[in-house]
Amino acid sequence: MFPRRVLCGIQPSSVPHIGNYLGAIKKWIDLQNSGDNLIVMLADLHAVTIPREPDVLRKSVLETAASLIACGIDPKRSIIYRQSDLYHHTQLAWLLGTLTTVQKVAHIPTYKSKVKDESSIPLGLILYPVLQSADILLFKTTHLPIGEDQIPHLQLCTYMIEKFYHYYKQNIFPVPQMMATETNRIRSLRHPEQKMSKSDWEERSRIDIMDDEKIIREHVMKALTDFNAKISYDRQARPGVTNLIDIYSGITNQPVETIVAEAEKENLNTGAFKKRLAQIIIEHFRSKRIEYLKLMDDRSHLLSILNDGRERAHEIADKTLNEVKHIMGFN
Amino acid sequence: MFPRRVLCGIQPSSVPHIGNYLGAIKKWIDLQNSGDNLIVMLADLHAVTIPREPDVLRKSVLETAASLIACGIDPKRSIIYRQSDLYHHTQLAWLLGTLTTVQKVAHIPTYKSKVKDESSIPLGLILYPVLQSADILLFKTTHLPIGEDQIPHLQLCTYMIEKFYHYYKQNIFPVPQMMATETNRIRSLRHPEQKMSKSDWEERSRIDIMDDEKIIREHVMKALTDFNAKISYDRQARPGVTNLIDIYSGITNQPVETIVAEAEKENLNTGAFKKRLAQIIIEHFRSKRIEYLKLMDDRSHLLSILNDGRERAHEIADKTLNEVKHIMGFN
Repeated sequence: MFPRRVLCGIQPSSVPHIGNYLGAIKKWIDLQNSGDNLIVMLADLHAVTIPREPDVLRKSVLETAASLIACGIDPKRSIIYRQSDLYHHTQLAWLLGTLTTVQKVAHIPTYKSKVKDESSIPLGLILYPVLQSADILLFKTTHLPIGEDQIPHLQLCTYMIEKFYHYYKQNIFPVPQMMATETNRIRSLRHPEQKMSKSDWEERSRIDIMDDEKIIREHVMKALTDFNAKISYDRQARPGVTNLIDIYSGITNQPVETIVAEAEKENLNTGAFKKRLAQIIIEHFRSKRIEYLKLMDDRSHLLSILNDGRERAHEIADKTLNEVKHIMGFN
Repeated sequence: MFPRRVLCGIQPSSVPHIGNYLGAIKKWIDLQNSGDNLIVMLADLHAVTIPREPDVLRKSVLETAASLIACGIDPKRSIIYRQSDLYHHTQLAWLLGTLTTVQKVAHIPTYKSKVKDESSIPLGLILYPVLQSADILLFKTTHLPIGEDQIPHLQLCTYMIEKFYHYYKQNIFPVPQMMATETNRIRSLRHPEQKMSKSDWEERSRIDIMDDEKIIREHVMKALTDFNAKISYDRQARPGVTNLIDIYSGITNQPVETIVAEAEKENLNTGAFKKRLAQIIIEHFRSKRIEYLKLMDDRSHLLSILNDGRERAHEIADKTLNEVKHIMGFN
């Protein structure tokens, strides 16, 4: 009944790290290249659930967009746009908000983990999942490549669909299916017990995919491993080297077993393995990085891509929002 | 520094009753006619803090608009438009929401009085004042004709202005001044201890300003007074007859004292006074009612007025929102 449509949301926090890339972006590009209709949303309204440094936000959105395009999101096939460029998201969020309660949104666990002071909870934090439901429903999204941590948000969205049907007896939204991604699989290079993160102050803890060769090599070479020089895969006992094998596998699409067997055959120690991994990462991103720098150098071209994306997203969003408003009695 | 601009918001709950008219609408028209720039917002997004019957909402918005125009809101001088026609309100509300906390909005008393079940609070109820702040700031409103019950909302708005300045060091919003109105002055015709209200199930408790002569006469004649047939003004001891004098005074612009003195001189009893009041109300709204029926009969003309209002409101709102978004780092 509903045409297949995939919504990919990303926090526009500048160049993605290799964990984002392998866990999400690379999979989006695979979906796109096997024929899916992708809407890639730079979720800048979500980026301000608490106030941000304006110049950083401005720059980060463009860097995120350029990274995605450089990696293979094709603005001709997919729609890539800035969430804040469409006013429809927040109006739909308002309308959907009438279907739910404070208690319902306050019980979503992802919000709780972000609250530092229970007596002063930023409003944006509890409203985040409502806006996310609006993002999803605005495009009548059928498929969502999201991680397991997003399941409570998806449940809220499903609840909104049910409530909308309950009040208005109209079945206009598909229940979106989750396409599991593993955004948390790649760990910090310095503290492999934590996931790799843009908010880690230690830059060596991660590889940003548009880093230059020198930095990539340095970060890989200084990745924390253990006193065992052998290459073996064991998430519990050897998280550091296992993480490197995961990155290797993610980049090359080789199964972990093949990588380990090969390392064993060639008698590679962790140092040699790191060197090889660094080279593989550098090669993988070399042409992408050139494309990225080109895009960042031609700001007006990049903006025209986002404007085009906005227009195409607008067309879909406008249709849905008008439909919702008509059903609710606004027009 | 900021040009004087008056925002008049009204819940689009069909034809206003005479309490709304005397307490607010008549004063707006006076402001307009003495040269003020009025923006009259039909607050339909606020009308759905809980779900509404769609057909009723659709009809009510138009009836409210037609009533206001028939009463003298001049679409050439003032801007009259539907809030939901501008997507800017909710996006600005989202952006402002990042400046405040759940606790801050949950402590606004007006919301508390509407909560029936503390364990299941409609999300729209606590967000209402945030959207209202956005309404006000979107137009850089300098003056607000509102009742005293709205003071906590105005305080939240002022708090938002301060927070915006605190984070972004830009002083782009005037602190709006309250122009006190007395929306609660006119009481129920049946229960004069309560204010007149559209939500009272008893239709005889009020006069809707576009009611036909027969109904107006009937409602006035059946207004609850007391066993004293004399006309005297005493809000505590004689709320029923006092309310009728207030309506008389509101319509004719005569001071209460003059009205009472005249009734005394002519030796009018309550019955005769009611008869005269009914006639005065009927005369006051006669031509307005003809205009109202004409507007309701020409739906496309009415819609074209609202569309024109939307375009003019859009121009102002777009400017403000772009300014806010630029300051916050969105463009």
